[in-house]
Amino acid sequence: MFHQISIIGSGLLGTSLALALKSRRLCQRVHVWSRKPETRAKALLADWCDATFEHATEACKGSELVVICTPVETIVPILKEIAPSFDKETLITDVGSTKKTICQGASGIKGDFNFIGSHPMAGSEKTGMSHARADLFQGAACILTPDEDAHDAQITQLHQFWEGVGMQVVTTTPQKHDEIVAHISHLPHLLATCLCSYLLEKEVGWQQLAGGGLRDTTRVASGDPDLWKQILEHNREDVLRAVNGFQIELQALKTPLLNKDSAGLMARLERGKRFRDQL
Amino acid sequence: MFHQISIIGSGLLGTSLALALKSRRLCQRVHVWSRKPETRAKALLADWCDATFEHATEACKGSELVVICTPVETIVPILKEIAPSFDKETLITDVGSTKKTICQGASGIKGDFNFIGSHPMAGSEKTGMSHARADLFQGAACILTPDEDAHDAQITQLHQFWEGVGMQVVTTTPQKHDEIVAHISHLPHLLATCLCSYLLEKEVGWQQLAGGGLRDTTRVASGDPDLWKQILEHNREDVLRAVNGFQIELQALKTPLLNKDSAGLMARLERGKRFRDQL
Repeated sequence: MFHQISIIGSGLLGTSLALALKSRRLCQRVHVWSRKPETRAKALLADWCDATFEHATEACKGSELVVICTPVETIVPILKEIAPSFDKETLITDVGSTKKTICQGASGIKGDFNFIGSHPMAGSEKTGMSHARADLFQGAACILTPDEDAHDAQITQLHQFWEGVGMQVVTTTPQKHDEIVAHISHLPHLLATCLCSYLLEKEVGWQQLAGGGLRDTTRVASGDPDLWKQILEHNREDVLRAVNGFQIELQALKTPLLNKDSAGLMARLERGKRFRDQL
Repeated sequence: MFHQISIIGSGLLGTSLALALKSRRLCQRVHVWSRKPETRAKALLADWCDATFEHATEACKGSELVVICTPVETIVPILKEIAPSFDKETLITDVGSTKKTICQGASGIKGDFNFIGSHPMAGSEKTGMSHARADLFQGAACILTPDEDAHDAQITQLHQFWEGVGMQVVTTTPQKHDEIVAHISHLPHLLATCLCSYLLEKEVGWQQLAGGGLRDTTRVASGDPDLWKQILEHNREDVLRAVNGFQIELQALKTPLLNKDSAGLMARLERGKRFRDQL
């Protein structure tokens, strides 16, 4: 049980986290910073928020844990801004979908705080406070990426924090994290975007014929382009490696169809099913 | 209202069709043929089936409409088998996911029947009688591909039949149908398979971290490999053209990421979102 937690950024993830903390009685006071005055006004009226602040430094005062829930490009700049205000070894984490760039950026910032990166693998193609849900994190995975200097007690504390909102927590390095999510999250997003972008060239009438298969396969492409541009650019090298690997695989799947090699085509379809059935 | 309809093949689509016909009171008697004795035994116990037959020709006797609901490779062979048994201009259709090969095959068969191809764009990665649902067709699109000789009255009858089970019906040529579904159904399936097949090479632990994005993007890859091998091979040329187009698009999406061209990457993400938001 925390006495006070600061949530920096009240979009889908920040608000869902506040809702989860309050509904599970994991925290007495939730302090919220949001860039926009109208979002702060909305938050202040809600049960999940005890106080809002115009400046992020004020929102962090007296908190045992600070969770930065802003788009990936702004996480390190915000950390730089709030860093000088801490007066004890405050634990700070984030919810960013990339970790290498963020953890490297954080390690270069001086201040009386300890940063441990988090990536709760929960979300939606719908963004903003209005889509928040107390059960967004329930049953999903959360990856922690502590650096070598991280205190064991704080790693444990953060582990328990995410478990508290219902997540399965694992720990790895920022490098490994970025390699993994490039494959299981960023590549699928990029493929969905690519398929949609490709089909946009085609006749309008085709869209009306789409079944559940196309809808599910492309759902994530509806996500915020600006958020995803930031994620793909942050994780550029790993994403490019994942795309290259996929391009080779696609050529290898096309070849038996091209060569009328039924057994080869069947083998690829069976491989695909084997992976999907295990998910 | 039909007096008697024959359903040839009682898998997911055939059984769902029978369920829909009975629950909407669109047909008095449903005759069912299934290859396996145990499936016939199950069907006979169900409300949606009035009689089962060991031979498809027997199942068709006296029906006003015959719907062939078997995997695409067996539709024409079954049509050949049942064709000699008709004694008036019986309307025969199918539910196959490809139309060019099937309609060409059907046009070469002599007999007192008229074949009009149908493709109800409904289904699931789960196959078989046990997954059937009366509302499977509700709200989905159905594509009819009558040839030039088809009788207007029978086209109208088939149109009303699929509308009767809740579908939005459109008419096009078998060639155009195959081009469309190569892009909006077969390509998405192939990409999901390819992504799964690619990820199967990676570390097992990665699967446990997968979020809803990967699960949705790859759902269809769980479909029956044998059914999908038949579909991809039937529609080989159009699928290969769709894959080629996608490969060019993927390279075009990779390029701005490679060149650190933020505006170019953003434009592709926005194109993708524009298409998806219209679905």
